[in-house]
Amino acid sequence: MFQIKPPYYGAAYYPEAWEPDQVDEDIRLMLEMGINTVRIGEFAWSNMEPAEGDFDFSLMNMVIDKCFNAGIAVIMCTPTCTPPAWMTTKYSEIMVMNTHGERATHGGRRNACANSHKYREFCDQIVTRMAMEFANKENIIAWQVDNELYNNSAEGRGCCCPECMTKFKQVMKLKYVTIENLNKAWDNYVWSLEYNDFDQLPIPRHDVWHHPSYQLEWMEVQAKSYCEFSNFQADILHKYVNVPVGTDMMPFLGLDYEDMNEKLDVIQFNHYRDSSNLWDIAFWSDFLRNLKPVPFWVTETASCWGGGIAPSWHGEPNFGIANVWLPITLGAEANLYWLWRNHWGGQELMHGSLVNSWGRPMHIAGEIKQLSAGLKKAADMINGTKPINNHLAMHFSHLAWNMYQFQPMVNGFDFNARVTNDIYHPLQQIQLRPNVLGGGHALDDYKMIITAFMPCIEEKGLSDRIFNWVENGGTWVIGPMADIRTTTGAKYKQAPFGFLEKWTDVHYNFTIPGGKMFPITYANGDKVDTTSLNYDAYTVTGASKVLASYTDEYLDGYAAITETKIGNKGGRIIMVGTLLAPKSWASFIKNIAAECEIMPVTEASGNVVTGLRDGEFGEVFTAVEVENKEGEFVVPFDAYDILTDMTYQKGQKVNMTKFGVFLMKKK
Amino acid sequence: MFQIKPPYYGAAYYPEAWEPDQVDEDIRLMLEMGINTVRIGEFAWSNMEPAEGDFDFSLMNMVIDKCFNAGIAVIMCTPTCTPPAWMTTKYSEIMVMNTHGERATHGGRRNACANSHKYREFCDQIVTRMAMEFANKENIIAWQVDNELYNNSAEGRGCCCPECMTKFKQVMKLKYVTIENLNKAWDNYVWSLEYNDFDQLPIPRHDVWHHPSYQLEWMEVQAKSYCEFSNFQADILHKYVNVPVGTDMMPFLGLDYEDMNEKLDVIQFNHYRDSSNLWDIAFWSDFLRNLKPVPFWVTETASCWGGGIAPSWHGEPNFGIANVWLPITLGAEANLYWLWRNHWGGQELMHGSLVNSWGRPMHIAGEIKQLSAGLKKAADMINGTKPINNHLAMHFSHLAWNMYQFQPMVNGFDFNARVTNDIYHPLQQIQLRPNVLGGGHALDDYKMIITAFMPCIEEKGLSDRIFNWVENGGTWVIGPMADIRTTTGAKYKQAPFGFLEKWTDVHYNFTIPGGKMFPITYANGDKVDTTSLNYDAYTVTGASKVLASYTDEYLDGYAAITETKIGNKGGRIIMVGTLLAPKSWASFIKNIAAECEIMPVTEASGNVVTGLRDGEFGEVFTAVEVENKEGEFVVPFDAYDILTDMTYQKGQKVNMTKFGVFLMKKK
Amino acid sequence: MFQIKPPYYGAAYYPEAWEPDQVDEDIRLMLEMGINTVRIGEFAWSNMEPAEGDFDFSLMNMVIDKCFNAGIAVIMCTPTCTPPAWMTTKYSEIMVMNTHGERATHGGRRNACANSHKYREFCDQIVTRMAMEFANKENIIAWQVDNELYNNSAEGRGCCCPECMTKFKQVMKLKYVTIENLNKAWDNYVWSLEYNDFDQLPIPRHDVWHHPSYQLEWMEVQAKSYCEFSNFQADILHKYVNVPVGTDMMPFLGLDYEDMNEKLDVIQFNHYRDSSNLWDIAFWSDFLRNLKPVPFWVTETASCWGGGIAPSWHGEPNFGIANVWLPITLGAEANLYWLWRNHWGGQELMHGSLVNSWGRPMHIAGEIKQLSAGLKKAADMINGTKPINNHLAMHFSHLAWNMYQFQPMVNGFDFNARVTNDIYHPLQQIQLRPNVLGGGHALDDYKMIITAFMPCIEEKGLSDRIFNWVENGGTWVIGPMADIRTTTGAKYKQAPFGFLEKWTDVHYNFTIPGGKMFPITYANGDKVDTTSLNYDAYTVTGASKVLASYTDEYLDGYAAITETKIGNKGGRIIMVGTLLAPKSWASFIKNIAAECEIMPVTEASGNVVTGLRDGEFGEVFTAVEVENKEGEFVVPFDAYDILTDMTYQKGQKVNMTKFGVFLMKKK
Repeated sequence: MFQIKPPYYGAAYYPEAWEPDQVDEDIRLMLEMGINTVRIGEFAWSNMEPAEGDFDFSLMNMVIDKCFNAGIAVIMCTPTCTPPAWMTTKYSEIMVMNTHGERATHGGRRNACANSHKYREFCDQIVTRMAMEFANKENIIAWQVDNELYNNSAEGRGCCCPECMTKFKQVMKLKYVTIENLNKAWDNYVWSLEYNDFDQLPIPRHDVWHHPSYQLEWMEVQAKSYCEFSNFQADILHKYVNVPVGTDMMPFLGLDYEDMNEKLDVIQFNHYRDSSNLWDIAFWSDFLRNLKPVPFWVTETASCWGGGIAPSWHGEPNFGIANVWLPITLGAEANLYWLWRNHWGGQELMHGSLVNSWGRPMHIAGEIKQLSAGLKKAADMINGTKPINNHLAMHFSHLAWNMYQFQPMVNGFDFNARVTNDIYHPLQQIQLRPNVLGGGHALDDYKMIITAFMPCIEEKGLSDRIFNWVENGGTWVIGPMADIRTTTGAKYKQAPFGFLEKWTDVHYNFTIPGGKMFPITYANGDKVDTTSLNYDAYTVTGASKVLASYTDEYLDGYAAITETKIGNKGGRIIMVGTLLAPKSWASFIKNIAAECEIMPVTEASGNVVTGLRDGEFGEVFTAVEVENKEGEFVVPFDAYDILTDMTYQKGQKVNMTKFGVFLMKKK
Repeated sequence: MFQIKPPYYGAAYYPEAWEPDQVDEDIRLMLEMGINTVRIGEFAWSNMEPAEGDFDFSLMNMVIDKCFNAGIAVIMCTPTCTPPAWMTTKYSEIMVMNTHGERATHGGRRNACANSHKYREFCDQIVTRMAMEFANKENIIAWQVDNELYNNSAEGRGCCCPECMTKFKQVMKLKYVTIENLNKAWDNYVWSLEYNDFDQLPIPRHDVWHHPSYQLEWMEVQAKSYCEFSNFQADILHKYVNVPVGTDMMPFLGLDYEDMNEKLDVIQFNHYRDSSNLWDIAFWSDFLRNLKPVPFWVTETASCWGGGIAPSWHGEPNFGIANVWLPITLGAEANLYWLWRNHWGGQELMHGSLVNSWGRPMHIAGEIKQLSAGLKKAADMINGTKPINNHLAMHFSHLAWNMYQFQPMVNGFDFNARVTNDIYHPLQQIQLRPNVLGGGHALDDYKMIITAFMPCIEEKGLSDRIFNWVENGGTWVIGPMADIRTTTGAKYKQAPFGFLEKWTDVHYNFTIPGGKMFPITYANGDKVDTTSLNYDAYTVTGASKVLASYTDEYLDGYAAITETKIGNKGGRIIMVGTLLAPKSWASFIKNIAAECEIMPVTEASGNVVTGLRDGEFGEVFTAVEVENKEGEFVVPFDAYDILTDMTYQKGQKVNMTKFGVFLMKKK
Repeated sequence: MFQIKPPYYGAAYYPEAWEPDQVDEDIRLMLEMGINTVRIGEFAWSNMEPAEGDFDFSLMNMVIDKCFNAGIAVIMCTPTCTPPAWMTTKYSEIMVMNTHGERATHGGRRNACANSHKYREFCDQIVTRMAMEFANKENIIAWQVDNELYNNSAEGRGCCCPECMTKFKQVMKLKYVTIENLNKAWDNYVWSLEYNDFDQLPIPRHDVWHHPSYQLEWMEVQAKSYCEFSNFQADILHKYVNVPVGTDMMPFLGLDYEDMNEKLDVIQFNHYRDSSNLWDIAFWSDFLRNLKPVPFWVTETASCWGGGIAPSWHGEPNFGIANVWLPITLGAEANLYWLWRNHWGGQELMHGSLVNSWGRPMHIAGEIKQLSAGLKKAADMINGTKPINNHLAMHFSHLAWNMYQFQPMVNGFDFNARVTNDIYHPLQQIQLRPNVLGGGHALDDYKMIITAFMPCIEEKGLSDRIFNWVENGGTWVIGPMADIRTTTGAKYKQAPFGFLEKWTDVHYNFTIPGGKMFPITYANGDKVDTTSLNYDAYTVTGASKVLASYTDEYLDGYAAITETKIGNKGGRIIMVGTLLAPKSWASFIKNIAAECEIMPVTEASGNVVTGLRDGEFGEVFTAVEVENKEGEFVVPFDAYDILTDMTYQKGQKVNMTKFGVFLMKKK
């Protein structure tokens, strides 16, 4: 009986690009490096189906079996990202079409249209045959659907082929029933834009000055096409295999993580961070672990550098240590590198790896082995605890991301950068780390929720659910730039907010979009900086309270932050009309959180990411240094470090080396 | 009887994008804000012709009538900028074609080809029907043809559809008669470029290294197509309506303001300046008021910021005050904002406005009301005076603008920036402000004319007219970079100048195009800086005089500025071979102007734009601060300020606040 | 009998763009300027074949004859760069096609496809007719094929027309025989990229993420097409004419200088350097003079500035002096300007010239005459000596250039800049100047060779030849980034190097691609800086020696530079694993060169380019200042300066003025 338990530690492996007789040597090296998992098949369609309808699974069977014998687990991937040349040239109608009507040619990857019927037929066959072929392989621990599914287009508009056009029109027809409804939802009465028929909907060319609602809908349909494509493969796999199915996704929100993973079993996540932005993986981990009840997997990350035809960056000593432990401490149970052995040709021949093209260990071999040993040592902790929920949450929405793409609303607004840099990071730096939730996530487990930069709170019924949650005692920090757009990216017509004026006594007067910085002044007289972004001017009536006001120019005397009590269970809505400067934001949230009895993990320097885990294994405190600087933290309880077996006392100040890691079990 | 007199103060209004029952509330708000004029219909084609040949003017009638009842004037616009979807999809042959043969699709605006016969048919119908429908509406004070007519193409090459190609070839055939003449005019004997037949003329693709004369001719034909298109609509309107017809134009010279407005009745002008370049509207005002004997109209400007899917800038407090008064003091009698009420959707939903999408006053509501009151108070002044002519002029040529686009002649030359920043602005800053004239303007009213950066002085017969004017006593400052190209952008073959060497004793030797700065030295020994741009080296024979010479390197000893007396009435030609540094330029021109008895308006700081007006109302001195700084000026005569009723003495130094305005009537 | 000897001094002349009766005046001016050579016919196809099949050589005959009478030599050019409009429009299938399937239109130049059969037919006719017509003109001293032959495409992918596609597939079929061989050579087993048939090979679109080996092969086939096109014309010319045939090439390696000139008789070279990079012409001269046994010709350079529709830079006083003398001292015997007389229209009407469009001398006329006189004075030196070979060489490879274009291997790697700035320039600055050799050049004349940044040393059999050369006593400095790719840009599969590990005892461990700077330490303890580029980590066994090691981070303790003795004749391989900082590199090479008894020319400041020439005329030392700074040098032997007749003693320190020149004959 094959027995591999998490943590899974391994790499992507492409035996199809090498001589078959090299597999033994590769496995020998893997074992030497301490790897227990490989991810295979990802791009090997031409190997498994070398000609139309001719299937050959001999290489994959051989590799899987040799891995089995070596005690190495396998994540089996469907190779649909890379249709073979016999398909792309004979059936060119499957290829992605750009906004100018040109089909992609053979030569790249993710170049077939997710909506192509012919392509779907071929995918159906290869996935079905693979599922049947490998269903009984005991060391296959999971499947991966395709690779980094996304609307693959240099133009950022997905595929514009006739099948996609037809689908877009069908979806619009289903959604709106009449073209008048569509015109009314988008406000097409500007510029005589209204359509008379769904068939008139155009291709989203960049050289046409297009309507933001139209562009939003187009990209949402494209995104959903990838969900369907993934589900279509998952449905096949679920018929034949009993292990979890996932799809490896990159850290951006072009595809909705909630939607994409709804029918899948495990979150698979690829990222290539360097020391300048590794902290951002704390954010993603805090998001990913809430998507499924089971731990998420890092399916791809760099061992030492990212790259293609040239390396694009270079990790400092021990960067790899923090890079692996950070997501593990925050909820992952797998780390797989891209890639095992450097390619000897092709578009990515200069990417970082574990061994170079000649099977010689890379410079980071020592770190790899150290990690392997550490993960083994921490296995019980990883499997026997989970990050705790401190009842603080913040929202992070795919719909918002997409909406801002086509209407930034304030000059140069970058949704992802704003949410991570300005909302999350200041809190992380004071060790007050929220769970990050998609728009559809349940709210019951939280006492306090921050909803910033979410133009539409009707997404997935959130508006109903959150008001109910507030009435039941929740503290909701809402804004800036939230509840100001319908699901299709238009403004509400009767009021600036969809709901907030109904729910509170706060009256919106006007907005100054920024440019100049206007400070705000708290009720106690403290004056703090903001970030020159979107100044809503409020006035308050009734029982609502002004928490902070403006004092300058047009804004003088208007409220910037207000609080309204809701219901009789302590619920309240705190409206934030502008973005505070990072430290002010952290203090503001820390105070409100304290009122909700939500506390930071511990005291630590801002370059350290700390966490708490709990479970049958016991209580665990974790700390990872992520900025290649020295740091420090205060030990929250008497504990010993799982990695070094050293003991520490509660309240002790511990110094951290660059990229250092602590896993402290409570005594 | 409906009675609205200038100044017209109002905004663009789009009732077609809102519920009809909101009109009353909008009008109520307009009256509250002090608005007396709206501009409607601009993009409302689909509202007025919802299906091919089905006309429905009910909404527009209702709005016009309600405005009538409220005492609000209407500027009625033809909606031809935005053909409805039924037209753009069924008759796609009307759509603009790019250089790659792609037609524009529905989704933007100004996307139909001005030369399309089918589009012209539709325009004929809607304009005729509107003219007939609204001819008797008493409160329609003017019509506007289309909106910001221009060769609408991301590529800057206009429309390349078969109808445009045919037109281009026809125009070339008419102009040159034989292809040999065209080859000779353009110098097509370089690179074997000569054509054998007009039919060989190609599309102006960017990826072909095209001949500058060909590109110039192409764009001139495109520009003329828009004149014809505008005239075609104006001719229809003139048949039915008795109020002035105009077309609203943006502040650049892609279209020739003289040509475009020849058959029109009122100059309509749109601009979106912020405090960094508001002074430039002094330049445009000094240009626009000379195009027609009647005052010009600002048909669009921002109330607080420009923008589309995001605001692009943000006006400081009182910016709007100066923004409105500046053109009014310099010759306008109307100011209309874009737009009245923020759109609730679409491509421009974040643009500045008077009330936001929910009918709530914007932060600048106080300024709007203040302006409204001020304009009423100044109405007699506005209607009873005009800016005086101080007999100083400078040229500003559409042909020059277009010519430099395709052959900058010196590295990075930007015609518009050079003329405004380097020729006009230094003079404005010493309050010596010329009238700015197009190439075709009559010269009789001027004692001194500056003609800089006008490569071709044969435009519209200027060369004959100006020499005659010099012979009659005019002082002509010509250069740099003037009289060096034929009308088609080729060099003269026999001499570097078309005329100057014939008219003067000045001999051109060579030019150094710049890069390094070479100073010049006046006859009195003063040495002043230049601007590293184009150094003509002259020598002088006969009666001409050297005013300034070079002293460095290759240029040492050559003349930079020369003066030649012409005729016996005091006329002279002053040739300027290089661009002086701003302050040197101002002094140089001030001295020559003084010789012509032309004096600055008064003494004032450079951030203040002063002016003098005269008429039945009396004499008026105006001052507007345009850079958001404090400033000062010396009162030129005993006067009282129309806005504040305060009195001032001649010679008194008055301090100005940021964006302050004075309108001083001479006592 | 016509008698013109080198040095040839002249300009490009385009009488076809001017009135024929101006030729006499032009020739008069040429003689006045001291010119003895013109280059004509280059773009005059429409003049010589005004309609299909109608040939008219009257103008060219007239010009050649008048030149003959004036004692002016002629370089006759084939005009195939600029097909006339009757051809480009009637036979549009000859035009270059871009990656989107669009044909070039009439309007530019070099716009016909070198592989077009129809175009070749037309070229065959015009070249044959010209060759026959002008074969007996005594003053034609050479022919030039076409102009700046290159894959003329804004996209950098050459021509993608059906004939080019067919050719590419044919060449691939000939090279690889089976598609499996191609797949194996490129490593197409990555991403299911393997082709099943040569017909599946696609067009190299930029919006497809293409394989670097495919892109390399594509561009190599394009490059070879131009060799064939040039040879096709040269073959015709060689049938009829007895003077040398060349083709004027620009200073970059898109075309292989060795291949292009194999069947030609004289190297023709065009360059437009300014004072910021004139030193680079020392590099090119050191390269060009080795390509043929006869001196090379500068066929185009700027007299004062380069430009098109505007000048792009402006030469300082005397820049032109150094610009002409530099290549002359280093092996050229001709300098021709572009162009004689400024065009009066067209795409290049603002380019620098000798006389302006009106036949008036440009500001640099004095320099031109001074040069003319100096060249006459130095004629015996130029014709009676050649630059000596000091037995030091370095490689410079077209294949490397092309390979790095499609796989830079380290981030942002610019092959040309690296080889010239980092390998050559530091040596030039200490006056240790190597001969620069293409990959195919014979090695026998050298004692020491530097081969840096040459990924593939199998090019043109170099690997065999150089090992043999080392065994015979050569000192080979190899690296960094050399011997690491096959001829098709894939890695070697069995070892990181194709040969170096076989030939030495050095073991490659891994590479860090840079980003951070790691210093190296020599055996004597000296620590020197490197340039943050590609750190190979070596270990050494057997008899090899470590010359320098790393001391930091992952690299600590690994060798950076090693030396291996080869054979028993003193041969050795010095492997350099990283790029040293410029001064360290110069010292390192100077020491090794000294061991080989190769010494700098003399002591001089780095802004001076010195050289030694030898021949029947005697020994000559030359010095040219190239950076517009003052400089100095030590006279290497008792001598007199040919230009000034002044005498100098060995060891005397001589000061140089900006752009100064010395030609010192040994006494």
